[in-house]
Amino acid sequence: MSTQQENKFQAIISHAKEYGFVFPSSEIYDGLSAVYDYGPNGCELKKNLRDYWWKSMTQLHENIVGVDAAIFMHPTTWKASGHVDNFSDPMIDNKDSQKRYRVDHLLEARADALREKGAEKEADALIAEMDRLLAAEDFVALKQLIADQQIVCAISGTGNWTDIRQFNLMFSTQLGSVAGEADTIYLRPETAQGIFVNFLNVQKTARMKIPFGIAQTGKAFRNEIVARQFIFRMREFEQMEMQFFIRPGTQKEWYNYWKETRLQWHLSLGIPAEKYRYHDHVKLAHYADAALDIEYEFPFGFKEVEGIHSRTDFDLKNHQEYSKKKQQYFDNDIDEATGKPYGNYIPYVIETSIGLDRMFLLILSQSYEEETLTKEDGTADSRVVMRIPAKIAPNKLAILPLVKKDGLPEIARELMNECKQHFKCFYEEKDAIGKRYRRQDAIGTPFCVTIDHQTKEDNTVTIRHRDSMLQERIPISKVKEIVQAAL
Amino acid sequence: MSTQQENKFQAIISHAKEYGFVFPSSEIYDGLSAVYDYGPNGCELKKNLRDYWWKSMTQLHENIVGVDAAIFMHPTTWKASGHVDNFSDPMIDNKDSQKRYRVDHLLEARADALREKGAEKEADALIAEMDRLLAAEDFVALKQLIADQQIVCAISGTGNWTDIRQFNLMFSTQLGSVAGEADTIYLRPETAQGIFVNFLNVQKTARMKIPFGIAQTGKAFRNEIVARQFIFRMREFEQMEMQFFIRPGTQKEWYNYWKETRLQWHLSLGIPAEKYRYHDHVKLAHYADAALDIEYEFPFGFKEVEGIHSRTDFDLKNHQEYSKKKQQYFDNDIDEATGKPYGNYIPYVIETSIGLDRMFLLILSQSYEEETLTKEDGTADSRVVMRIPAKIAPNKLAILPLVKKDGLPEIARELMNECKQHFKCFYEEKDAIGKRYRRQDAIGTPFCVTIDHQTKEDNTVTIRHRDSMLQERIPISKVKEIVQAAL
Repeated sequence: MSTQQENKFQAIISHAKEYGFVFPSSEIYDGLSAVYDYGPNGCELKKNLRDYWWKSMTQLHENIVGVDAAIFMHPTTWKASGHVDNFSDPMIDNKDSQKRYRVDHLLEARADALREKGAEKEADALIAEMDRLLAAEDFVALKQLIADQQIVCAISGTGNWTDIRQFNLMFSTQLGSVAGEADTIYLRPETAQGIFVNFLNVQKTARMKIPFGIAQTGKAFRNEIVARQFIFRMREFEQMEMQFFIRPGTQKEWYNYWKETRLQWHLSLGIPAEKYRYHDHVKLAHYADAALDIEYEFPFGFKEVEGIHSRTDFDLKNHQEYSKKKQQYFDNDIDEATGKPYGNYIPYVIETSIGLDRMFLLILSQSYEEETLTKEDGTADSRVVMRIPAKIAPNKLAILPLVKKDGLPEIARELMNECKQHFKCFYEEKDAIGKRYRRQDAIGTPFCVTIDHQTKEDNTVTIRHRDSMLQERIPISKVKEIVQAAL
Repeated sequence: MSTQQENKFQAIISHAKEYGFVFPSSEIYDGLSAVYDYGPNGCELKKNLRDYWWKSMTQLHENIVGVDAAIFMHPTTWKASGHVDNFSDPMIDNKDSQKRYRVDHLLEARADALREKGAEKEADALIAEMDRLLAAEDFVALKQLIADQQIVCAISGTGNWTDIRQFNLMFSTQLGSVAGEADTIYLRPETAQGIFVNFLNVQKTARMKIPFGIAQTGKAFRNEIVARQFIFRMREFEQMEMQFFIRPGTQKEWYNYWKETRLQWHLSLGIPAEKYRYHDHVKLAHYADAALDIEYEFPFGFKEVEGIHSRTDFDLKNHQEYSKKKQQYFDNDIDEATGKPYGNYIPYVIETSIGLDRMFLLILSQSYEEETLTKEDGTADSRVVMRIPAKIAPNKLAILPLVKKDGLPEIARELMNECKQHFKCFYEEKDAIGKRYRRQDAIGTPFCVTIDHQTKEDNTVTIRHRDSMLQERIPISKVKEIVQAAL
C-alpha cells in the first residue's frame, strides 16, 4: 500500500478508537491479539449494518427465512463438512525463535523478494512449484524447497526449521463435565453448517418450497496464524450468510442472480460502483462448481468483502452420509421434459457470505474524509467527517440548544422526547455550536438541529446537513419527518 | 411441578419445535446436550426481544450507551473478576458408574427424600450442616456426610465415591498457533466483564458523566453439570446486561431505581404483575452489597429471569489492581457537605442482567394457550394461540387472498409490497381461510387481513384480530396504520 494509503488507514484506526467505534480487546491488559471490541458508536453502526442486511434478506424476500443456530454444534458436523480433515494450513516452526510460519507465506515472501530484484521468471517458477507441492501435500519436498531457497526466520535469522505439519484452524474446547462424557467440540469456523443441519427442520416447519433461502448472522472463530489489518482478519468475527436451496441444474441461473443482487445491496448504501469489482475464483474449493468474491477497494487494496459460492449438493450430501438421515426434498412441480414431478432430490445450494466486521471496515474506509474548508474570512480550515449512510449511522439526529438558558433546553427536550421514540438521537447543551457540529461530523450524524432564540418566536430551527454543511431554517414540526425520509 | 403444569410445559416444547421456534441443536446428529437452535419464528422473536431491550435501555436512556465486546478476552480478566479461582462447584464422581455429581445436588436430593418420609427436622439439619461445610470448603467432612447418609449413585447403586474436587465452569481453548505463544483463554462466562474492562475507554470517548450506564447483549458460556428445563439453563446462552456507574454512597437509591424500572419493562410487554415477584438474595455474592432476582412464574414454578445486583466497586477495583491502570473517574460536581468537587473515585456499580433465552421462554410460557371454542353450530372447537405481544411477534401481519384467482392475489401483493417495507409480513394463498388463520394463531401473528371479492368493489378488507378472533371490515388503505399503531 502506498504511504498515502497507509497513512489514511492508520488515521482511520486512530479515529475509530478516539470516537468510540473500535477498541483493542481487553486493552487495559495490553490487548488480545487480533481481537477487538466495538465501542458505543461502533456497536450501533455494527447493529445497523446487521439489521440492514437482515431486513433486505428476510423481510423483503418472502422466500428467505432465518435461523439462529448455536456456536456449539455436534462434532460430527465438522467431520461431514470436511473441516476436521481439511481446514488446516501447512506450517513450519523455526527451532531457534520458536516462531511458526505458514509455508505458503514464507515462499510467497521469497517470490516477492525475487521480483523486487527483477527475477520475475524465477519468482513465477517458485510459485508454480509451491502450488504443485502443496496440491500433492508433499511436505518433505516443500521443506527442501525452503532450504534450497535459503529462506531464514525473520527473528532468529536462521534456517533451522522443523518438519512441516498441518495445523487445524478450528478452536476446540471440552463440553460436559461428567467424567467419561467430556467431548471435544469446536467453535464453529463458519455459520453455514448451522443452516445445513437445520435444512429439513426449517423447510418443514416453515413450509418452504424450493427455491428458498435460510439466512443467519452470528459469530464464527478461526485460529488464524497471521491475523492482521485491524478488523479485516480477526480470530473472532461475525458472518452474515444465506444459503439458497435450488433444484439441481439451475445453479448457474441462481448464481448469477445472487451475484447481481448482492452487489446491488452494496450499491444501495450509496457506495460508488467503481469501488467494487468481482473476482472469479480460478482454483475452486472442493465443494464448489463456481465461486467469486465481491471485492472492495480498501486502503490496502481490493480485498474480499463478500463471497458468492455455488456449493452444489456437497454439504447436504455429506450430512446425509454422516447422519444416516435423508436430506432430500420432494419437488412436486412438473418437469416439462418428462411431464412428471421432479420428485425427490438433494437440493443444490448458492451461498452468499459476507463478513460483518469487514463490511464495518468498508463503511469506515468509505466514510472517512479529512476535508479542507475555507472559512468565511478566507483562512483555511478543516474537518474530519464520517459520511456514513444515514440509514446505518449510529445517531440520526443531534439536538442542540444554542445556549443552556432562556428556555431553549426545554424546547430541545420536547423535540428530543418525541424523536427518540422513532430513531436514535443525541442531545448536547455544552460548548460552542461549531465545536458541537464537528463532533457530530466525526461520528457521522447526518443531521444537527439547533434551537435558538428565534425558535421561541416562530417555532423554527436550523437544520444542518452533515455532508454539505448547509443550514436551513425549517419549522420544528418538520424535523422528525425530514430525518425519517432519509432513513 | 404438577402433572398439569408438566403437561403444559411439554406441550410448549413440542409446539416450539413444530412451529419453528426452537430446535434441538444439530438434531440430525441426535442433538448436543443442553444446546438449542432457534428456527425461523424463534430467531425473529429472539431478535425482537433483544431489540426491544436495546431500544429501551439505550435509545430511550440518554445516559446509557452500548458496547459489543468480544467473547474472547485477555485471560487476566478472569483472574481479576474472581472466575478463575471461584467460579466452580464441588463435585464428586462415582467410581463404578463414572458419573459425576454436584455435591450440593446429592445432599439436597437426600434431604428431599427425608422430607417425603416426614423427617422434616433431619432434612433441615442436613441442609444446615451442608451449608456450613460448603462455606468452610471442608471437602473431607462433606465426603463423610455423604457416606454417613448412605447416599448412592442412581446409576451404579453404589457408594463408591472419589474425593470431592472443585470443577470450574468456564470453557477454555487455546488461542494463537505460534509455538510458545499459545495461550489458554476462556469463553466468557458473563458479558459484564466486557463492560468493566472498557469502562474508561467508553467513559472518555463517549464523554459520559456519572451516573451513566453501559449496555451489552451477547453470548456467554458455562459448562453446567446439570443443564435442564429446555432453554432455561443452557451451556451457551445470551445475556442482556447493563452496568450503571454511580457515585459511592448512592447505591441504595439507584438499586431501588433499577429494581423498579426493570420490573416496569417486563410489565410494558403486557404481562400481568401477579406473574412476577422479587426474590431478595439472603446470601450475597462476594462482590455484592445487595441483590435480588426478578422471578417469573414459569410452568415449573417461580424462577429467576433477571437479576439486579449492587456490585460495589469490586470489579473496577480488581481490574485496577491486576492491570495496574487506574480505573478512576474525576467527578467535578460539588459535594454540598464539603463545598468541594467529589474528585477522584472508583465508581460503584448497579447491574441489571437478564437472560435473553429465559426471556424467550417466558414469552412462550406466557403466550401459549389451548383455547376451547364454540362453533356457530354449537359444537366444540379448539385452537392453540400464541398471544405474543404485537411489538415482539415474529410476523406482524398475514396477508391472505381468499382465493388464488379473480385478481385477488394481485391486490394482496400490492398491499404486501407496501407493508413489508415497514414491518414483517407473511403472505399465503393456499388452503381454506380458517386453516390459514389457525396457522397464524399458532405462530402468534397479531393481525390477518383477507382480500375477497368485495375488496374489488369497495377497497375494503377483513382484518382479524388474533386474540379476540373478531373480524372487522376496514378500508385497505388503513391496514398499515392499524398494524403500526399496535407496535
